[in-house]
Amino acid sequence: MNTFKCIVSYDGTHYAGSQVQPKHRTIQGELEKALKKIHKGEGIRIHSAGRTDKGVHAKGQVFHFQSSLRMQAHNWERALNTLLPDDMFIEAVEAVADDFHARYDAVEKEYRYYVETSEHYDVFKRQYAYLYPYELHIAAMDEACTYFLGTHDFTTFASAKTSVKGSRIRTLYDVSIEAEGTMLIFTFRGNGFLYNMVRIMVRALLDIGRGKYEATIVPEWLEQKDRRLLGPTAPPQGLYLWGVSYKNADETLKNEADF
Amino acid sequence: MNTFKCIVSYDGTHYAGSQVQPKHRTIQGELEKALKKIHKGEGIRIHSAGRTDKGVHAKGQVFHFQSSLRMQAHNWERALNTLLPDDMFIEAVEAVADDFHARYDAVEKEYRYYVETSEHYDVFKRQYAYLYPYELHIAAMDEACTYFLGTHDFTTFASAKTSVKGSRIRTLYDVSIEAEGTMLIFTFRGNGFLYNMVRIMVRALLDIGRGKYEATIVPEWLEQKDRRLLGPTAPPQGLYLWGVSYKNADETLKNEADF
Repeated sequence: MNTFKCIVSYDGTHYAGSQVQPKHRTIQGELEKALKKIHKGEGIRIHSAGRTDKGVHAKGQVFHFQSSLRMQAHNWERALNTLLPDDMFIEAVEAVADDFHARYDAVEKEYRYYVETSEHYDVFKRQYAYLYPYELHIAAMDEACTYFLGTHDFTTFASAKTSVKGSRIRTLYDVSIEAEGTMLIFTFRGNGFLYNMVRIMVRALLDIGRGKYEATIVPEWLEQKDRRLLGPTAPPQGLYLWGVSYKNADETLKNEADF
Repeated sequence: MNTFKCIVSYDGTHYAGSQVQPKHRTIQGELEKALKKIHKGEGIRIHSAGRTDKGVHAKGQVFHFQSSLRMQAHNWERALNTLLPDDMFIEAVEAVADDFHARYDAVEKEYRYYVETSEHYDVFKRQYAYLYPYELHIAAMDEACTYFLGTHDFTTFASAKTSVKGSRIRTLYDVSIEAEGTMLIFTFRGNGFLYNMVRIMVRALLDIGRGKYEATIVPEWLEQKDRRLLGPTAPPQGLYLWGVSYKNADETLKNEADF
């Protein structure tokens, strides 16, 4: 068996999410259907770096699978892209060490969240950004971002549905906001994220931007470990899983000459 | 009865086109359904500045309708936008002279066509641009644009389905190409356009950009009045009806104080 690492982008608008659910169109479902065709009916299970919810997009989701087929990376790309629907695209395939795991070996993830602040409703952005037509105090939001940096217990910023088992401690390396015209692009980079964590942080930052809270409330929120302190989770269509990084990326690569 | 002029934008992805067709979701169908609700079941017919095909978008389509209701423009906007689906948006409503007609009074239309030339397939652009991953000779295309300017018989650039009645002579005021990174934005402004004319001109310009023809072939094509000289119509998802202009815009406006 050979192990392959794949990078996939998708427009999440018409998916019930990344993970297989009976009777729903999912990213995993489409990928496994394509792999089954390539393997002439044999079921192939994929493992992704992390789940994305209904309506959430990806520019660089990662998954791995094992196969007895000996194909060059670019042939995998072509075969998969031929079979996948047009709202998914395999960006890259690599042969990796047999014990590579897309979720357990990930050392860093990046998410971006798009907020369109224009007062003008734009039909072309409704599925690709959170349309939030309000004036925001950017300096306060920038200050609030800094309090998220570093290592914290993020219980306050995790969905109540998060598993009670396991640590809620995560380390964030980058939390920042960039403006492109009236569009705000939030970047979050860290060693891991709890369920709905990015979307809840965005809600908190927007509340601060509108003056509902001072930026200095963030450390208090982190301290109190209570999801109920914050408003509703920001909607899914603004969120993009931007990329996933792995340790010693070069070492995990298998020599292409093997194939 | 009062006459109202409306500007509407729409994402054409999930519409069978602008004009009513039985059993299909259309722009006209959605607008008339919303107007019927506002008029408590009374059917209201709308008239648009021109048809757009399945998958074609609009930033500034115009239509008019007549109503016995006395409502301020912003109340019409709010009432319609509340009832319309989220891929349509009423940008503006104006009370106009009773004899205003969205199609017959239009003096100028602008279309834009988006061509993404990147080699990289982008799932987020597939419904909003023509993905055309080829190197193009822009200077040749710019030269070709100039031959379209002015008054010509555009039979070569009209769908064979165009009505045989009526003149095929149109005047173009602007035909130009702008690059934003790897995206090419074609602008066409003229006093009118034949059926599929913009999409056939785009096909011709792309063929010239790839070196299949010299730019100087355009006058010959115009001369020969034969649609069969050209390749297939460029696909709908790159096309946007950008705006429609009317003569003496100020004179056609009714005094808002009347309402």
